[in-house]
Amino acid sequence: MEHHDFFLFLPLLLLSARLLAELCVRAQIPAVIGELLAGVILGPSLLGWIEPGEAIKLMAEIGIILLLFGVGLETDVRRLVNAGYQALVVALAGFFFPLVGGFLLAREVFGLDLLEALFVGGTLTATSIGVTVRVLSDLGRQHFREGQIVLGAAVIDDVLGVVLLAILYEFSLGGGVSLVNTGKIVLFIAAFFLLAPVAAKLLAFLIKRADHGSRIPGLIPATIVSLVLIFAWAATELGAPELLGGFAAGLALSRRFFLPLGAALHADEPFAERIEIQLKPILYLFTPIFFVYVGLSLNLRAIDWGSPFIWSFSLGMLLVALAGKMVGALVIKGNWAMRGIVGLAMIPRGEVGLIFAELGRVSGIFNNEIYAGLIIVIAITTLLPPLVMKWFYACCGHRLPRT
Amino acid sequence: MEHHDFFLFLPLLLLSARLLAELCVRAQIPAVIGELLAGVILGPSLLGWIEPGEAIKLMAEIGIILLLFGVGLETDVRRLVNAGYQALVVALAGFFFPLVGGFLLAREVFGLDLLEALFVGGTLTATSIGVTVRVLSDLGRQHFREGQIVLGAAVIDDVLGVVLLAILYEFSLGGGVSLVNTGKIVLFIAAFFLLAPVAAKLLAFLIKRADHGSRIPGLIPATIVSLVLIFAWAATELGAPELLGGFAAGLALSRRFFLPLGAALHADEPFAERIEIQLKPILYLFTPIFFVYVGLSLNLRAIDWGSPFIWSFSLGMLLVALAGKMVGALVIKGNWAMRGIVGLAMIPRGEVGLIFAELGRVSGIFNNEIYAGLIIVIAITTLLPPLVMKWFYACCGHRLPRT
Repeated sequence: MEHHDFFLFLPLLLLSARLLAELCVRAQIPAVIGELLAGVILGPSLLGWIEPGEAIKLMAEIGIILLLFGVGLETDVRRLVNAGYQALVVALAGFFFPLVGGFLLAREVFGLDLLEALFVGGTLTATSIGVTVRVLSDLGRQHFREGQIVLGAAVIDDVLGVVLLAILYEFSLGGGVSLVNTGKIVLFIAAFFLLAPVAAKLLAFLIKRADHGSRIPGLIPATIVSLVLIFAWAATELGAPELLGGFAAGLALSRRFFLPLGAALHADEPFAERIEIQLKPILYLFTPIFFVYVGLSLNLRAIDWGSPFIWSFSLGMLLVALAGKMVGALVIKGNWAMRGIVGLAMIPRGEVGLIFAELGRVSGIFNNEIYAGLIIVIAITTLLPPLVMKWFYACCGHRLPRT
Repeated sequence: MEHHDFFLFLPLLLLSARLLAELCVRAQIPAVIGELLAGVILGPSLLGWIEPGEAIKLMAEIGIILLLFGVGLETDVRRLVNAGYQALVVALAGFFFPLVGGFLLAREVFGLDLLEALFVGGTLTATSIGVTVRVLSDLGRQHFREGQIVLGAAVIDDVLGVVLLAILYEFSLGGGVSLVNTGKIVLFIAAFFLLAPVAAKLLAFLIKRADHGSRIPGLIPATIVSLVLIFAWAATELGAPELLGGFAAGLALSRRFFLPLGAALHADEPFAERIEIQLKPILYLFTPIFFVYVGLSLNLRAIDWGSPFIWSFSLGMLLVALAGKMVGALVIKGNWAMRGIVGLAMIPRGEVGLIFAELGRVSGIFNNEIYAGLIIVIAITTLLPPLVMKWFYACCGHRLPRT
């Protein structure tokens, strides 16, 4: 994509996202659906006007990281830790069931190869933290108990996904799993998680000091955006990019960092509020780019809609994808409304599912039919839950805990 | 520049700009100097760490346009129109004297070709609206009478510069000036200026309507940035890019539009204030990129510091550059303090001077020595006036009109 095109593509993207989001909200549909649809319409699926180039991908990444930072900024760590055990259970169950279910269905019913079936299962484990968090915040529920459980579970799920992806990719290259390489990745992620809260605390302190000492306005936008980019850079640099793809590592690591950073800054409420006021407009500018980008990446035209295999395969996988996450939510404490909403919120595969599917396709593990079937599953699981969640809150929201 | 580098370059750029701006402010030096210096240090002049690529150029352009939009948002059209006659006189005189002075000095004393001497004169006519406006707003003087005169004069000067650039470039290609082509450019610019206020009024109305009707937050950042990009795109599309260079046209035309747009929105004060609060953080993020970009573009290493010709040439041109603008300011009404500050504010050549010099070099009109000499003049005229203006206000500010 050329410089010149970018000048036209970006406003087209921003204004379409805006228009469709407004229309959706008027039709009682969550705004995020409008943004995803804008991507589907402008992208290769329908009009093919915009091909997601590097610059848009970059801005999409900034958007999702800032969204998570914003969530962190509003998150009380104690509430998140309180929800921690439940979140862990939801994440593990919601990871295990789709993985095993998807694998067995692919292997036993559709007769796929071992590796192919494993990659199908892996794709189904994904949880789109972006879509999930956005829907909860559109509905104003991210601070409630179910919101905290889902947030925690989505974070854990994302990490499990990156580890699984690394192992599977390793497996696909050598025909076997190298424990040394897998161990390295696990160690790296563990180190990251031990260091991230410390680094977050330190940076939060530094930003605050700098802000107090500064004599010119505009410190917060420049420092936070710089941090976002440095972490994205470091994640791609350290995260074995040839293995996981820079985007996956960038998403999984830098994203994960900005939640604790925001939470560390949250401790000082007036300061957190100042940051929020200054960061909101930048967030509003960049976040829709992320969701449009997810829509742009869904190439529905690549699907041979006449193939009976694709229909049966995607229908089967869709059921596993839905049931797997819902079953995962059954294990938590609480009434059925609580379980229902947590399960629903975990369903969207979004960008994380797309990374799995894309990696499977690029490395030649998925043929076009399998890939197409999974794209259908990702599209439906990404677009449907926001709608259902909204209806669910309308009908059963009063049965949820009030904190 | 690769995607991956960008992740490192942009934070490096943002944080250095911030750090140097903070240090400058502590040393009683305007912040903008720190940002320009950050570019000089990081760029080819000193460290050579960052080469200004397309993405940074793009963000720089967004930065300067948003800065002008912000100025427009705070500008009362009546005050600007009141200053209009004085501004026109300052612009014309400050255009004529450096052009003729530079031409005569280059032709008669240094014995340059006709075309070369004309291009040298042209380069000296430039006024950096970016640096000028930024210094005035750093000092909190952009709403005062001298601020309005300088703003108006810088706008007019920019347009005169684009027309002159077009004529000279034409002349350099064919060896003569085609009246038809020049006429086309003048017509196009005239049409733009007749339509811009109408379009600005219309868009201001639409943005306000949309904002009232919107049910999701974040309309203003997305629409304003989209508009910026669309105008930059249209300017490069319509402004005969092979003639003027996309950047020159983009700067001159889209920039110019956002001043009336801001001013049109200014009419409704509470709404203008809402826009300002939402746009400020985005402005703080992008504006420094512009000034660092100007610093990055100044390659001081290209200069052969041992050449006596360069020293005498740049010294002579510097005197013309300083005196030409100061003499231009003598014609206005007011006491000597008023004339002094207006003259000083018109001196920075900045990005506009660089465009002239670069076009002269690329088209083979300037040899390396002439180019280097002009770069010295541009560097000094860009870096010095902000300092002098600050001192001037400190010592003689009380002699300026209080409105």
